[in-house]
Amino acid sequence: VWIGDDAAVMGDGSLFATDALVAGVHFDLRWCSAADVGWKALAVNCSDIAAMGGTPVAAVAALVLPAEPPGLADEVAAGLAEAAAAFSCPLVGGDTTSGPVLVVTVAVVGRSPASGAVLRRGARPDDTVFVTGQLGAAKVALDAHRAGEQTPAGTHERMVRPAPRLAAGIAAAAGGATAMIDISDGLAADLGHILDGSGVGVEIVGNAVPRGPGVSLDAALYGGDDYELCFTAPDPEVIDRAFSAAGLARPARLGVCRAGSERWLVVGGTRSSLSSQGWEHPIP
Amino acid sequence: VWIGDDAAVMGDGSLFATDALVAGVHFDLRWCSAADVGWKALAVNCSDIAAMGGTPVAAVAALVLPAEPPGLADEVAAGLAEAAAAFSCPLVGGDTTSGPVLVVTVAVVGRSPASGAVLRRGARPDDTVFVTGQLGAAKVALDAHRAGEQTPAGTHERMVRPAPRLAAGIAAAAGGATAMIDISDGLAADLGHILDGSGVGVEIVGNAVPRGPGVSLDAALYGGDDYELCFTAPDPEVIDRAFSAAGLARPARLGVCRAGSERWLVVGGTRSSLSSQGWEHPIP
Repeated sequence: VWIGDDAAVMGDGSLFATDALVAGVHFDLRWCSAADVGWKALAVNCSDIAAMGGTPVAAVAALVLPAEPPGLADEVAAGLAEAAAAFSCPLVGGDTTSGPVLVVTVAVVGRSPASGAVLRRGARPDDTVFVTGQLGAAKVALDAHRAGEQTPAGTHERMVRPAPRLAAGIAAAAGGATAMIDISDGLAADLGHILDGSGVGVEIVGNAVPRGPGVSLDAALYGGDDYELCFTAPDPEVIDRAFSAAGLARPARLGVCRAGSERWLVVGGTRSSLSSQGWEHPIP
Repeated sequence: VWIGDDAAVMGDGSLFATDALVAGVHFDLRWCSAADVGWKALAVNCSDIAAMGGTPVAAVAALVLPAEPPGLADEVAAGLAEAAAAFSCPLVGGDTTSGPVLVVTVAVVGRSPASGAVLRRGARPDDTVFVTGQLGAAKVALDAHRAGEQTPAGTHERMVRPAPRLAAGIAAAAGGATAMIDISDGLAADLGHILDGSGVGVEIVGNAVPRGPGVSLDAALYGGDDYELCFTAPDPEVIDRAFSAAGLARPARLGVCRAGSERWLVVGGTRSSLSSQGWEHPIP
């Protein structure tokens, strides 16, 4: 039904994305605040704009509000407002209605970069595969919450207050990115969408996947909700210069796209098949 | 929290609106199909654009889907697609997720008319108050469904497949409309929003309120979900010419705005206070 990219590109180059967060599916109010949910609802939509190399322009939000707990609307609105200020994406309108569970649906309009929106389908053989930041922290925090354990330092924040990589998306587009996606379902699954869309294979190196202390390779490959960007580009030097020019850390180089459809993960000199199996929906 | 108009007007004049339909709040699948819900979700958003005198450009939809009944997603999508074709508002993207009840949230981007978007707050003393079409049919159908009775001819369709008055909104803007709103909560309530926003009073004539056969004045004043347009304009002749030029029936003239805050309804020569009490949410 839907055009399969992070955001739709309209005739005049503007971008349009929507994502809904549903209680019990995408979040659990035992593990995060209603303000966190508001923040995240705007963040994941801005992340879709970032994944096109774009800049958010404005957002609207529709809230479905249960009767309990009281004050929910104000808390969600406060989180939305914080995120709107942080991402320079004003919230210009919305709708509130009653309903059985909290649902926060945001839609964002954005601008494409001058070089044109970066789709999922442009990766070519010999392109380098990149990823920004560090992966797996959101998964580590979620696992800790589920086990009733203390979350390792810094991980809870990554889970409940993801930051869309807007500057990195713009730098990637400026550096010649051929395909890009944000990591919501896990690196393996989301890189898989680029490979599916582009009709290429890949060989990535496990040790090259950037992850924080205490994060397993599995968590980094299959843990969702990181909202870092994965992209491909023909010239790594041009990418590095674009990131440096923007004052950003250089993205990690994971490996290279290959002609064909095979997907390889190299760990300790051993090549194994890279499964695209992410997790379906984290419940932070 | 939100800017209180049908749609937000952005810096470049583009319009942005969102509305959610929630099962058990806005609709009941005993009385309408899932395709009707898809249609209506796009229709009410396009109606918000119509109420600004605008033209819809593109829409996105986010669906929250319960496990039962099967096939729900396809049915909703079919209704959305029908409406998208009918209103020339392509559905460019979306999101689907699981959840406890069906929620369909649509966001629409539109274009303002050349003369600028028509807000709710521009009505002035001596402006004439207009309404398009006929009111009350959706309320009559809903009452019949609730009573387990046959719906009078033509009323069910008005309830489940409302048509945004896009051409009328454009004609009203071209004819100098000073304030406009679509009728979702009932004429009295929605006209009340114009009066609140504009700081004027009104005197309208009950007999002038257009209603179909079998529709009481109460149903026409307080019944929601009609999605006709109510607007004000200084020169009724200019409005009539704009509607004629667009090949549309002339809108009904209900009365006149007055300085001050008093709201009068004249019925049979007797003046009584016009309550703004609409209904909160019809459940068709």
